[in-house]
Amino acid sequence: MQTYSSFIPKTRTLMGPGPSDVSERVLHALSRPTLGHLDPDFISLMDETKSLLQYAFKTDNALTMPLSAPGSAGMEAMFVNLLEPGDKVIVCINGVFGNRMKENAKRVGAEVICIDDPWGEQTKPEKLERALRQHPDTKAVAFVHAETSTGVRNDAKTLCQIAKSFNCLTIVDAVTSLAGIELCVDEWHIDAIYSGTQKCLSCVPGLAPISFSEHAVQTIQKRKSPVQSWFLDMNLIVGYWGEGQKRAYHHTAPVNSIYALHESLVMLAQEGLENSCQRHASMHQHLKTGLESLGLEMAVDEAYRLPQLNAVKIPEGIDDVQVRSRLLNEYDLEIGAGLGELAGKVWRIGLMGYACKQKNVDYCIQSLGRVLNR
Amino acid sequence: MQTYSSFIPKTRTLMGPGPSDVSERVLHALSRPTLGHLDPDFISLMDETKSLLQYAFKTDNALTMPLSAPGSAGMEAMFVNLLEPGDKVIVCINGVFGNRMKENAKRVGAEVICIDDPWGEQTKPEKLERALRQHPDTKAVAFVHAETSTGVRNDAKTLCQIAKSFNCLTIVDAVTSLAGIELCVDEWHIDAIYSGTQKCLSCVPGLAPISFSEHAVQTIQKRKSPVQSWFLDMNLIVGYWGEGQKRAYHHTAPVNSIYALHESLVMLAQEGLENSCQRHASMHQHLKTGLESLGLEMAVDEAYRLPQLNAVKIPEGIDDVQVRSRLLNEYDLEIGAGLGELAGKVWRIGLMGYACKQKNVDYCIQSLGRVLNR
Repeated sequence: MQTYSSFIPKTRTLMGPGPSDVSERVLHALSRPTLGHLDPDFISLMDETKSLLQYAFKTDNALTMPLSAPGSAGMEAMFVNLLEPGDKVIVCINGVFGNRMKENAKRVGAEVICIDDPWGEQTKPEKLERALRQHPDTKAVAFVHAETSTGVRNDAKTLCQIAKSFNCLTIVDAVTSLAGIELCVDEWHIDAIYSGTQKCLSCVPGLAPISFSEHAVQTIQKRKSPVQSWFLDMNLIVGYWGEGQKRAYHHTAPVNSIYALHESLVMLAQEGLENSCQRHASMHQHLKTGLESLGLEMAVDEAYRLPQLNAVKIPEGIDDVQVRSRLLNEYDLEIGAGLGELAGKVWRIGLMGYACKQKNVDYCIQSLGRVLNR
Repeated sequence: MQTYSSFIPKTRTLMGPGPSDVSERVLHALSRPTLGHLDPDFISLMDETKSLLQYAFKTDNALTMPLSAPGSAGMEAMFVNLLEPGDKVIVCINGVFGNRMKENAKRVGAEVICIDDPWGEQTKPEKLERALRQHPDTKAVAFVHAETSTGVRNDAKTLCQIAKSFNCLTIVDAVTSLAGIELCVDEWHIDAIYSGTQKCLSCVPGLAPISFSEHAVQTIQKRKSPVQSWFLDMNLIVGYWGEGQKRAYHHTAPVNSIYALHESLVMLAQEGLENSCQRHASMHQHLKTGLESLGLEMAVDEAYRLPQLNAVKIPEGIDDVQVRSRLLNEYDLEIGAGLGELAGKVWRIGLMGYACKQKNVDYCIQSLGRVLNR
């Protein structure tokens, strides 16, 4: 076989849709010596990580923890645990991740009612209300808080309020929203939520923070059929991530990744959640001003634009791939391509977590300006 | 909220059932700057990682890659992809992980025929042959190569040979066997196999190397029903992990964990697979000699004993928990408890990967001697 050697990556500036730049502090935490997954010291760390996630999610939910797999598995965990074959669920779709929710719900055998809105616009609350009136036997309503594919913020508070007025469970994708924009799990009555580590937490990719309300937990405990996924079965996972020092082995936790998540959450707590959101908002303003000075236009209406994921219209006559390649190859700067029906039409510039700072905003604007000759 | 600070773990010696000691080289690789999951440099690294896994598995299977989740998800990936509701599968059970296979197979709606053998003994090939004669419509045979819960090596070559003579797919758990004992995926006609990173590869926990034969791939492509798991659907995952430079986004890969896996595989290639297995065999002999000098007895017959996972009988009158706690607290040495029906009856001493060295053997024997007053 050929000879292989150690891989030394370039140091990129990550301003795509995630992963975002990971701080030295988090990378150091990641590389500390591995403990056993049942080591009492590691169990204490698990408990701290749970508390810190409760802080980040603004929830008192006891079942709040990181899942040992990426955000996509977090999404699947929602549907396989809360739905049973034949259950009716409404999924709001205005981008890639709403579509993915639909696909997940179908695969558990649920009856899926879709509420479609154009990509780049918000889910219309009145459409949800109408659908719920037509389908009063709906068990759950699912939607994406921050659509990473379009840069749109859906009105989580209002959508949950409507769902709750019809006694539905609420399932929310907070992959890109957590720690970047306001998110209040308890106050907004979110029953089940998942996020990712590689967005506004600026941790390495690979874990999915999740949280379930008491109502959701009871729903899972009272299931008639077993959860179709053994790996994602919350009834089993609580044996390992639950209360007390005595934990039952379920699977081997990704120990070092949890060191990293813990560190990123400590950093969030030290900055303060509100300050973090404020920083995302203000850096977005700087970025927007800079983009406009280059004659570029934001793709999403200001009223529901995400500060941490900026969809920017690609001007007529500009070669999308060439611009992104030059940014990567000449400036080690990653920005994101459009996804799905927005491919070739927008760039997605992330300002997430540790990457959300003046230095990156300046570098992005300067580099884009050079590449675009503006 | 309370104040949190960075977590600095103790440096333990990990001689339990995994995770095993992770080398400085792998920890350094883990902490290198994060790349985007679609960065061309990262895609090249993915390709190298695939080649290195082919080397470790002794296979030419094109579909050889790490799954972005722990070994337990690797197990689930086998059953959700290869089986459809109503399919008949034979599962050989002689420990915890055989049982877990049964549970996974049931959850995809398969008809499961169990072949039970006592924990601590091998699966009897003649039992498999008899079951296959009774159930000639069996689609797949599944078993565990190295039962981590008991320290038993099952005769993978013979079991696969029998399964193949009945035209069955073969599904093998190689979580603890990969890189520790002989394992020849192609030569033994294994159709689907999964492993973990935290055992004899001595990488951090969190990924599941997997490999599928051409026959397995065709089976997955020709399914009548969709794979019940979106996250584990190999038909989708190949779009990201497949051939060529153009990769479709499926989920965000755990980039840094893959740096670490790559480094651990480079280390394996540099040592040589056969040398690695030889080292596990010879360190096992040293450990066994040392344990016997303390008057301790191995729980598993020499003919099918795993060198990397040593089940040791707990002598009469010895307090299992106290011994393990003292080893951990006084010597920072982790050994494993018995699992399932072997709880309280055996200790499980791992000699895996980077932890499989004379220094650890000596330290383990000396520490055990002090704690046991022998």
